[in-house]
Amino acid sequence: MMFFALVLSAQSASKNNPRLLLSGDTAGAIGRETDNNPLLERSFRYAEQKADAALRHPVEVPVPADPGGGYTHEKHKKNYADIYNAALVFAITKKPEYAEFVKNMLLRYAELYPGLPLHPKRKENHPAGKLFWQGLNEAVWLFYSIQAYDLVKTEIKTKDREIIEKELFRNIAHFISVDSYDTFNKIHNHGTWAVASVGMTGYVLGDRDMTERAVKGSNKDGKTGFLKQLDELFSPDGYYSEGPYYQRYAILPFMVFAEAIEKNQPELKIFGYRDGVLHKAVATLLQLTNQKNEFYPINDAIKDKTYFSEELVFATNIAYERYRDKSLLPVILQYGKVSLSDAGFITAKAASGAENIPYERFSRLIKDGPEGDEGGVALLRMPNTSGTQLDAVFKFASQGMGHGHFDRLGLLLYDGPNEVLQDYGAARFLNVEAKDGGRYLKENKTYAKQSIAHNTLIADETSHYQAKVSEGSKNVPELLFYDFQKDIHIVSAREDHAYKDIKLVRTIAMLTTNEAPEHPFIIDVFQAVSDTPHQYDLNFQYSGQLMRTSFDYTRDNSLTALGTKNGYQHLYKTAQGKPGSGRAVFTWLKDKKFYSITTLTDTDTEVFFTQTGANDPDFNLRSEKGYLVRQPGAGEHVFVSIIEPHGNFDPQLETVQNPDSGIEKLELAYKDKKYLAVTFRFKKQEEYTLVLCHEKTEDNSEHQLTIDNKIIRWKGAYTITK
Amino acid sequence: MMFFALVLSAQSASKNNPRLLLSGDTAGAIGRETDNNPLLERSFRYAEQKADAALRHPVEVPVPADPGGGYTHEKHKKNYADIYNAALVFAITKKPEYAEFVKNMLLRYAELYPGLPLHPKRKENHPAGKLFWQGLNEAVWLFYSIQAYDLVKTEIKTKDREIIEKELFRNIAHFISVDSYDTFNKIHNHGTWAVASVGMTGYVLGDRDMTERAVKGSNKDGKTGFLKQLDELFSPDGYYSEGPYYQRYAILPFMVFAEAIEKNQPELKIFGYRDGVLHKAVATLLQLTNQKNEFYPINDAIKDKTYFSEELVFATNIAYERYRDKSLLPVILQYGKVSLSDAGFITAKAASGAENIPYERFSRLIKDGPEGDEGGVALLRMPNTSGTQLDAVFKFASQGMGHGHFDRLGLLLYDGPNEVLQDYGAARFLNVEAKDGGRYLKENKTYAKQSIAHNTLIADETSHYQAKVSEGSKNVPELLFYDFQKDIHIVSAREDHAYKDIKLVRTIAMLTTNEAPEHPFIIDVFQAVSDTPHQYDLNFQYSGQLMRTSFDYTRDNSLTALGTKNGYQHLYKTAQGKPGSGRAVFTWLKDKKFYSITTLTDTDTEVFFTQTGANDPDFNLRSEKGYLVRQPGAGEHVFVSIIEPHGNFDPQLETVQNPDSGIEKLELAYKDKKYLAVTFRFKKQEEYTLVLCHEKTEDNSEHQLTIDNKIIRWKGAYTITK
Repeated sequence: MMFFALVLSAQSASKNNPRLLLSGDTAGAIGRETDNNPLLERSFRYAEQKADAALRHPVEVPVPADPGGGYTHEKHKKNYADIYNAALVFAITKKPEYAEFVKNMLLRYAELYPGLPLHPKRKENHPAGKLFWQGLNEAVWLFYSIQAYDLVKTEIKTKDREIIEKELFRNIAHFISVDSYDTFNKIHNHGTWAVASVGMTGYVLGDRDMTERAVKGSNKDGKTGFLKQLDELFSPDGYYSEGPYYQRYAILPFMVFAEAIEKNQPELKIFGYRDGVLHKAVATLLQLTNQKNEFYPINDAIKDKTYFSEELVFATNIAYERYRDKSLLPVILQYGKVSLSDAGFITAKAASGAENIPYERFSRLIKDGPEGDEGGVALLRMPNTSGTQLDAVFKFASQGMGHGHFDRLGLLLYDGPNEVLQDYGAARFLNVEAKDGGRYLKENKTYAKQSIAHNTLIADETSHYQAKVSEGSKNVPELLFYDFQKDIHIVSAREDHAYKDIKLVRTIAMLTTNEAPEHPFIIDVFQAVSDTPHQYDLNFQYSGQLMRTSFDYTRDNSLTALGTKNGYQHLYKTAQGKPGSGRAVFTWLKDKKFYSITTLTDTDTEVFFTQTGANDPDFNLRSEKGYLVRQPGAGEHVFVSIIEPHGNFDPQLETVQNPDSGIEKLELAYKDKKYLAVTFRFKKQEEYTLVLCHEKTEDNSEHQLTIDNKIIRWKGAYTITK
Repeated sequence: MMFFALVLSAQSASKNNPRLLLSGDTAGAIGRETDNNPLLERSFRYAEQKADAALRHPVEVPVPADPGGGYTHEKHKKNYADIYNAALVFAITKKPEYAEFVKNMLLRYAELYPGLPLHPKRKENHPAGKLFWQGLNEAVWLFYSIQAYDLVKTEIKTKDREIIEKELFRNIAHFISVDSYDTFNKIHNHGTWAVASVGMTGYVLGDRDMTERAVKGSNKDGKTGFLKQLDELFSPDGYYSEGPYYQRYAILPFMVFAEAIEKNQPELKIFGYRDGVLHKAVATLLQLTNQKNEFYPINDAIKDKTYFSEELVFATNIAYERYRDKSLLPVILQYGKVSLSDAGFITAKAASGAENIPYERFSRLIKDGPEGDEGGVALLRMPNTSGTQLDAVFKFASQGMGHGHFDRLGLLLYDGPNEVLQDYGAARFLNVEAKDGGRYLKENKTYAKQSIAHNTLIADETSHYQAKVSEGSKNVPELLFYDFQKDIHIVSAREDHAYKDIKLVRTIAMLTTNEAPEHPFIIDVFQAVSDTPHQYDLNFQYSGQLMRTSFDYTRDNSLTALGTKNGYQHLYKTAQGKPGSGRAVFTWLKDKKFYSITTLTDTDTEVFFTQTGANDPDFNLRSEKGYLVRQPGAGEHVFVSIIEPHGNFDPQLETVQNPDSGIEKLELAYKDKKYLAVTFRFKKQEEYTLVLCHEKTEDNSEHQLTIDNKIIRWKGAYTITK
């Protein structure tokens, strides 16, 4: 009887509660449907198991003391996860002990928080928190805790509610939005966490001022705040300027706060904002993964991170709820779980009837910049003989703020699940205390961000924009042209400002020939133009074992660094050679497959084989290999290369297929100020010529060129002829 | 009508034919049962597809010219595979075109063979062939070709049969058994291929002299030949002296010839020979694989080689047919195919009703030597927290002939599918023409075989037995004791002759404690005793990223070789340190898991971090890492180490568990001439003492020792107490 009365009073008090992601009706429905829907079942059981484990221990709210990875840091993280799970279980089961646990925890925080100074382990020039060393974690704490409170609020007596709201939530929201004014008004993922957590707090506390500041910035003028972040941080294609690794992280507060806005201020039509940019943000992010579902490691990125990330469970669920995009369902089915929310409920129902098919990745050009005119990232994908894809990522995006790398016109290449040409990613062992507390290591700046840590061109052993974020942020590369046809995907971009007096243009084409339609390969034309002589280094970071070169090279008995600065100090020079005039072929074996890079060389060309690890006193760098083609003292130079997967080793049958490059001819058949033509021929195949225009032209412009006494006419920026 | 008559006449002529692996009755049964049995169906379709492809091309039998990997070499290999498949398809379908193809091919060989000189690309000091650069391939050619002929013989007119038998088979058998007398009478896998192929030829040609020489050696006195090979090459436990990689290769002629003997001379009771040693050979070989089904890479071995090897399809089928060992069925089911033979038919029928369960690997001691008294290999396996096994291989086997490595008392360690402490394997890129024709590279001798390429102790920078096979073959290590209990698997072995005046004893124990039953770890006690001072290096070859050390180390700006000879010249010294007295802890991250080696050190102890690649002009060596603990100028020294898997990194949750070693205490609590006691304690656990007797004692001998004023009494060679 008591129990019944309690539920009843809770129901009447809960008229406008909860106000965030999980409504009372859906919570009840989840409780009823778990038996019939495995996604709901698994998701609920997980939360229940976590909550039950938490309830078995006494509430502990330690005085903040430790940095990231340390005890108090991890404990405060665990606390918000615990109360969030307990609140979900309460909402679904209405069992009072879960609400009680949340209340007790929040009361303890309410006791502790008002007296807290800035965290003792805060760092200079980095926004501090109180519970945590950095303010970012503080916002994340609020993000989950306010959602937990939202779900149990009606269970808490008025007096306790007042304590929790006044001492804890108003205090922490004030700290995040007022004391930390700069972060709150920043157009950056830290800002998104801040506005999302404070905005949701505003909805739960019924504080209109708070929500307005979250949506429109502290001054409520729209110059900062959530909408402005949506304007500036995403391109019209849904590309997030920091790159996919951080997009994966930022997508959570973006989608969750949008969901909260939609529920409390539907008049803002947030999911229609900028032509549905939140939809594009989720869909594009999923496309920015390789065939192991790992996010492309461009900019600061941890390489093992896949789309199996908690953030994306929430984000895909909300995206499906709001946009009903069926292309998300294969991923949601792979998750095998949903968020316990209105969005998760709808998604689980839809997924239970959907077919379990692989997630499809296709070729596309993703434009960067708020207006879509700040370069971009091109994904070139063709099916290969293994039934997977050859998958190239050509990056000509904007700087990407503080986490951006100096990798203009950089290339990544995958063959099915294997990295062929790799990006080092970030120099960081996330949360590994032994490695500088799990933070970005100093080698992230001295190596991983530098241009030499990427598959691009480096002039005079100096990184693009001298590796200065402020300089790199001033300019963006320009897309020259792109085209995705069945047999050729081609993208061309220029970068005029990475070096003061050098203009860079790179064209990446993925092709198959008529004679070998299942063997896609890459033509890479990298042009540098300057009036003064420079040393140009074209860098290829491969992994695997060197098999064969078409040229002689020398090795020293001891290994020394290739250079002294800008990342070169971290590369051992393991060999060098001078291939002479012609084609330099470099062949390696990786994961039982053979790959070759064939590059045109002249009598000046030098090549270097490298390995990371020099000047790395703490073994912070992984040991990775590189092949560097150097053109010294050149004003203008065009690097013409074919990158080609071409064979395999079967250790069971002990057979080797096509261990050598199939290229019989590669020439730069034509070059003037505007046009370039590359002629190539594979063994037993016909000869092809790829003609490029490396100046910006109209899409339908007509061109004519005479190459080897043959007149070629075409429309558009490129053509390929036999 | 014609067709009917043909079949009839074939049947009558085939009374005693075929005589080898596939009887006429079974061939017919396979034809009838393919539709009902997927293993038979897939196996037959495969042979049919290969045969059909072969029949589409004209018969080509080129004059031998090329070395391994070259055109004529590969063509002659393809030819025997083609006629073998065609003969199988004929036997099953009776379609005459397949027999015709075999006949035509054999007639062409009969034309070519008699005039052939030794192969132009033969090598000095290596038995030559005529069709191939080495005699081994010649025997393999005959091995398959005589089986093919056996299946189609009745289809060939007498005149052609005479030509084929006289000009080809008698000639080649004569070349292999008489001209190549030494190989034919060798107790070695080359000898096995020779006797198997000649012996089967004898059965098919009805030549009693041939089969007798094959079974009992050229002099028919049993001092060489097949039975002697069975006596000497396998231990009573079925261990093959060259190690599993070559066992996998040799098992094919052993099993196939045994099957032929059983069918033609059942009175020899070959499958009961030496208490069923052929059964043990197959069963033991399968156990000598890691959890990726790869053969342990001890001795010369290609690391990717798994039990999914064509040789083992035949061998497991025959083993099942003859011994009805159900433990083989999971592997046979994984193959998804069988050999097209009487054995394959029986196996396919049995497998179709068997449950598809994982193949089980268990702890065991495998003794080496014809009498089982020449050391051995111990497999220590315990379940771990990941649901896989911690899997240690302790090798104290005999030299293993020419392919043996100088790795006495060496250790390999796997954690589930991951290598924790690795053996380099062989320096060879099999069949990769660019790498010295796919042969063993010179670095196989200068590095891979040397002791420093293994996880063992090296004295004075000199390999065991000075890396001389002749010396290493004179002596074998001695098993001191072993015991496999639930919570402790322990093996102890000594090696007195690897160095002139140093005696080596190593005890490897895999343990779990009561407090953490799911966390097995290794205690490694390596004792060296000498009257004169030596430099002792205990080597650990790990792979992964260094996370933390308990000691300081220094790195030079350039990398130089650790030494000048015996493999040391191939290691770069990447760092060195002097940990001082106490425990040196070395922690690394590999495949998202953490591992530590904790070793007792004193003020003399030095440590070195190494990386392969020095003095490797052609990049023939893989880049691998090592950790070397050096005790300079010691007469007697005991290296006491704990090797411990202890945590993981989850990139999706971004959490890190137990990144540091859990050891709080490790001491050599007692040492005298006979006994050693190691005391250890993990965090939040009780203290344990492992007491070892490093002298040979009776199994049930009683021992008593006073350690820290505590009297310990026990029976047997070791005890562990709290």
